[in-house]
Amino acid sequence: MSVTIDDIRAAATRIAGKAVLTPLLESPLLNRRLGCRILVKAENLQLTGSFKFRGAFNRISQLDPQTRALGVVAVSTGNHAQGVAAAAHALGTGAVIVIPKDAPEIKKNNTRAWGGELVFYDRDREDRGAIADKIARERGGAALVPPYDNEQVIAGQGTIGLELMEQAAATGAVPDAVVIPCGGGGLTAGISTAVKALRPETEIFMAEPAAYDDTRRSFAAGNRLAVDLSPGHATTFCDALTAPTPGELTFPINRRNVAGVIALSDDDVCRGLYAAFADYKLVLEPSGAIALAAVVTGALAKIHDTAGKAIVVIASGGNVDTVTYCDALARGARDALARGA
Amino acid sequence: MSVTIDDIRAAATRIAGKAVLTPLLESPLLNRRLGCRILVKAENLQLTGSFKFRGAFNRISQLDPQTRALGVVAVSTGNHAQGVAAAAHALGTGAVIVIPKDAPEIKKNNTRAWGGELVFYDRDREDRGAIADKIARERGGAALVPPYDNEQVIAGQGTIGLELMEQAAATGAVPDAVVIPCGGGGLTAGISTAVKALRPETEIFMAEPAAYDDTRRSFAAGNRLAVDLSPGHATTFCDALTAPTPGELTFPINRRNVAGVIALSDDDVCRGLYAAFADYKLVLEPSGAIALAAVVTGALAKIHDTAGKAIVVIASGGNVDTVTYCDALARGARDALARGA
Repeated sequence: MSVTIDDIRAAATRIAGKAVLTPLLESPLLNRRLGCRILVKAENLQLTGSFKFRGAFNRISQLDPQTRALGVVAVSTGNHAQGVAAAAHALGTGAVIVIPKDAPEIKKNNTRAWGGELVFYDRDREDRGAIADKIARERGGAALVPPYDNEQVIAGQGTIGLELMEQAAATGAVPDAVVIPCGGGGLTAGISTAVKALRPETEIFMAEPAAYDDTRRSFAAGNRLAVDLSPGHATTFCDALTAPTPGELTFPINRRNVAGVIALSDDDVCRGLYAAFADYKLVLEPSGAIALAAVVTGALAKIHDTAGKAIVVIASGGNVDTVTYCDALARGARDALARGA
Repeated sequence: MSVTIDDIRAAATRIAGKAVLTPLLESPLLNRRLGCRILVKAENLQLTGSFKFRGAFNRISQLDPQTRALGVVAVSTGNHAQGVAAAAHALGTGAVIVIPKDAPEIKKNNTRAWGGELVFYDRDREDRGAIADKIARERGGAALVPPYDNEQVIAGQGTIGLELMEQAAATGAVPDAVVIPCGGGGLTAGISTAVKALRPETEIFMAEPAAYDDTRRSFAAGNRLAVDLSPGHATTFCDALTAPTPGELTFPINRRNVAGVIALSDDDVCRGLYAAFADYKLVLEPSGAIALAAVVTGALAKIHDTAGKAIVVIASGGNVDTVTYCDALARGARDALARGA
């Protein structure tokens, strides 16, 4: 059992008029500097500031009414939290979110503003899945809305793939590659399923933090490996991309669909975040800028010929505090200046 | 002779497929906090990062081929510069831009990147119009592309009015008011002409810097007054809104169409810029955030009942250096925090 293009088309019908049809944006000046067409799918402009509403709405809208009335339970680093809370709100129910204590304030505040109830956990020490399961049981069998390992969630995220192919075609572009931020792999599983069904020749790339390169290593090993989360482990400011291992459902889908995984440092990510600011006028959070970073740093061009091609980049979210944002922007701007870009 | 809805419709046909159809964005959480629907027309996502491409393209595309081949000449504080350079480039000709020495670097650099030739002047001491006229004569009678006082430019900017009425209708909203940043008044003249033709009941408001409140005072006096530009005069970081007097063509149009002018301090503008960041994930320059500032500060609500209404805000541009942006963002965020917003 997996996710099909028909599941994704059905999800597109469900979310129509509920989710934002986000624009596919282009910067002719940046295109010229990089020698390719870059098309940015601006999911930071999605309801709740990230793509997560799509999958959450697709799942919650398919619960039977009695189960839905119990409310839903989710674990999240903060974007899925908002997506689930907003989707639950839109469907007339509630949501309990198990979220790291150190999640960005903007993510916690907006989850609450959408009516979400927050339960905090320690990212390094506690098993968030176990906490969520317990809450779901205590609430009489409330449904879980997993952040990526669920067919309905994956199909919802896949609607981005349908949209971007249509929007690219409207501008005369045929996507040669799609670059997607990588946490647990749900966004990639959905988008790659849609894109490969519509145009098998389009190559799919994932971009993940170097400190959380579990997907790259898992692909190389042929089975799911985890990052080392013991004290002193590597960290990243890409707080939305800290799933420690590829998903059980997403891994086989992505192994089949993905041409390569690009690991990027936080410094690289700052360059993507700065390009989003300067060239597209979009506020991206670090995690949301990592795919654009893979292109503007030249990391993608090292493993894939981009010259003259049309490359779609998923800008997955924009929920970031001002201090983190301005620190990253200053780092990215210094770097761009140093390279004369 | 003035600008009609037919001129604006003809402009829309000319720019179709050249300009970006910018999205009309909404934040349900901000709507709830403010008790009205705010619809943000994101012209920072327009080609060149501001609305100016529309008017420039509409004018340059109508020049006879011999005149167009001479290149065009424009005066600009930086956004019109990029719009003119990009429109000239798209139409296969060149552009000379008379621009203040102290214009933001991003505006100067991008104008050059679009092939524009820059001629600098001193904002306080030199007559930029005379400089432009001289260059146009020296180039054998090259055409000027005025920043606002030109029917073709006004009609081009008016295409935003057509788009926003259609986009608002698609979301089920009937705009009760449209709030527009005010420099020389070209953007307002165009948009208000379109909106009033389509729905006369919709009220039009202009937002201008308190340090450049020439439009507010001119409306009160019934004739065009100038701001005092003598040494020590008031300043603003809204660099795109520093026209010292309403335009000759734009003033009578706007006097007829505009219900009120709101003057805002730079501190107020920071609140608008922060809301664009936090609630819409849009990078706005100070001038581009002033209309949103008029709503989020409550300034509009003091002169117009907004409760339960749909208010369209024009976010006119996003060309800003990182240092200016982060300073403004920090000021806006502190203020929002202090007010518990």
